[in-house]
Amino acid sequence: METLRVELGSRSYPILIGQGLLGERALFDQHLRARDLLVVSNTVVAPLYLQALEATLQPRRVVVTILPDGESHKTLANVERILDVLVANRFGRDCAVAALGGGVVGDMAGFAAATYQRGVAFAQLPTTLLAQVDSSVGGKTGVNHPGGKNLIGAFHQPVIVVADTATLATLPPRELRAGLAEVIKYGLICDAGFFLWLESHIDALLAGDAAALAHVIRRSCEIKAEIVGRDEREHGDRALLNLGHTFGHAVESATGYKEWLHGEAIGAGLAMAACMSRESGHLTSQELDRVTRLVARTGLPTHVTNVKPDVALEHMRIDKKVQAGRIRLVLLRAIGSAFVTADYAEPALRHTLATHLG
Amino acid sequence: METLRVELGSRSYPILIGQGLLGERALFDQHLRARDLLVVSNTVVAPLYLQALEATLQPRRVVVTILPDGESHKTLANVERILDVLVANRFGRDCAVAALGGGVVGDMAGFAAATYQRGVAFAQLPTTLLAQVDSSVGGKTGVNHPGGKNLIGAFHQPVIVVADTATLATLPPRELRAGLAEVIKYGLICDAGFFLWLESHIDALLAGDAAALAHVIRRSCEIKAEIVGRDEREHGDRALLNLGHTFGHAVESATGYKEWLHGEAIGAGLAMAACMSRESGHLTSQELDRVTRLVARTGLPTHVTNVKPDVALEHMRIDKKVQAGRIRLVLLRAIGSAFVTADYAEPALRHTLATHLG
Repeated sequence: METLRVELGSRSYPILIGQGLLGERALFDQHLRARDLLVVSNTVVAPLYLQALEATLQPRRVVVTILPDGESHKTLANVERILDVLVANRFGRDCAVAALGGGVVGDMAGFAAATYQRGVAFAQLPTTLLAQVDSSVGGKTGVNHPGGKNLIGAFHQPVIVVADTATLATLPPRELRAGLAEVIKYGLICDAGFFLWLESHIDALLAGDAAALAHVIRRSCEIKAEIVGRDEREHGDRALLNLGHTFGHAVESATGYKEWLHGEAIGAGLAMAACMSRESGHLTSQELDRVTRLVARTGLPTHVTNVKPDVALEHMRIDKKVQAGRIRLVLLRAIGSAFVTADYAEPALRHTLATHLG
Repeated sequence: METLRVELGSRSYPILIGQGLLGERALFDQHLRARDLLVVSNTVVAPLYLQALEATLQPRRVVVTILPDGESHKTLANVERILDVLVANRFGRDCAVAALGGGVVGDMAGFAAATYQRGVAFAQLPTTLLAQVDSSVGGKTGVNHPGGKNLIGAFHQPVIVVADTATLATLPPRELRAGLAEVIKYGLICDAGFFLWLESHIDALLAGDAAALAHVIRRSCEIKAEIVGRDEREHGDRALLNLGHTFGHAVESATGYKEWLHGEAIGAGLAMAACMSRESGHLTSQELDRVTRLVARTGLPTHVTNVKPDVALEHMRIDKKVQAGRIRLVLLRAIGSAFVTADYAEPALRHTLATHLG
């Protein structure tokens, strides 16, 4: 087992990474002292891991809520379902909520934990690569609004993140590829060496090589923990983690959160961010090629046919990164170096959208 | 104008108290820099003060949401309405939400501000005595759940509180009395001298004496600001502010938030807390009499006939202050000195409920 830490003063917490951790009772006894625990999962993950987890959590009082799977179900209505269960079971402020599943389950369970009795303890038990490398760390919780992605939510840090890498063995290949989009992102924003490593290990990762996956989970969590520790509320550097996300969210939003997995939209978003960086004169053509090629080799889309450029632009305008009416973009000045800017040419943006969409 | 401050590091903010402040443009220009502003009000307050406020807020882009009046409308569905308006108007993370009204409007607008884009700026413009002395200060936001009062919410501090005392001139007498319940509470928990002052000035307050009201607003906000600055998240002393509230919330919950104003329920709750303190041997009979008499002279109920003791007890068990299944009560060891305890006799609690309810 590897242990990392997100350093946030009194709200610091460990990220535990290893094979079979969901079966280790001592670990939960040490970090999760609540007597009453609500486990939130979904219809795909629950049949695989819930029974074993419930055994691990004994003798706590464990209540379970199973939600439908998929980004289109990340709604306020489903968060209300979780809250109703907490009230119906008379859980007190000393209870805890645990998310067993991917990013969708984690975002909703976390938002319910953030708002139940103005905040109760929350544990992240991510079972997808995307959740293990990204969404389970950092305290962003929330739901989608028909008008835009993640528009409703709260910052609410977990008390523990338990990434059981054994769960990746049952992860569908499509979900594995989607998770790698966020991994590529970390290399792009701040670690050129890691990006190079990914270029030479992408086949092993896609084949499910356990050692290679363990490496990317640890390195990704290290980078994310370091950035979140420095800028929890995204007043500065944390915005870099949104590389590809303004583009990707527009793709998700425009397709009703049904067509593409979040990670797939982010794959296309990374290709667009790199394209825009090249158009703006920051990235070389060779670097742009490396980005596009790695995204493509990962099996992620670099071009999305079912979203029109104009529609995407409309959706980008409601993104959370809009300030004073201007879309702020995360761009690359090199592989391994990202920056936030509102200083770009509109034609370059339109060209980027036209190249990768429609 | 008087200015107090809630000291919370980078989230510190001023409380401004005075006649006619809603008309002072310079004050808003100084403290509320957002270009886009959503004003949330209700059907009673909006006709009285909204037009003048909109003039003061020029040249900002101001959008308005008017909600129905009353505690029974403090629901997640109404918060969703506010969020829908923010999305529909494409308000960015740099917008602000302002609450113009009483505690219900403030709690809902504040919760919407807490959760829109994971938190935007929030201004409290309280127009009732209760909101000016209590609910607008301290960052508690949220809504009721059919299962219990304020069960869903968030801590989200405002950037400014503007208490325009001129608005009290239009406040219905019933609302004035309700607000005084929270004022009496401050005297009871930590300021015996203030309680004594209230005993000798209650008639002036009920007659709407401006100087007397200004004094209680300032003193109440001083006490609340001091306690919140010490214990924002209610890990300790802030719980003292809940004196009478576990009893009062049960009364509100059991009557569907329709029968009694919050402050009226708190009046009865203070009488019950004092009774329980006497039953537990902490308060003298003379002190109990003083509490009951001041509550009664204020025109607040000390006995509630339409709630059965058993029903109230059921509702108390889902209160946020329950820990490890045990109801924690705020009791008085004297007028001006409160403490939190789970160490009390069940029969005393049942006797208290039987005396004041049913």
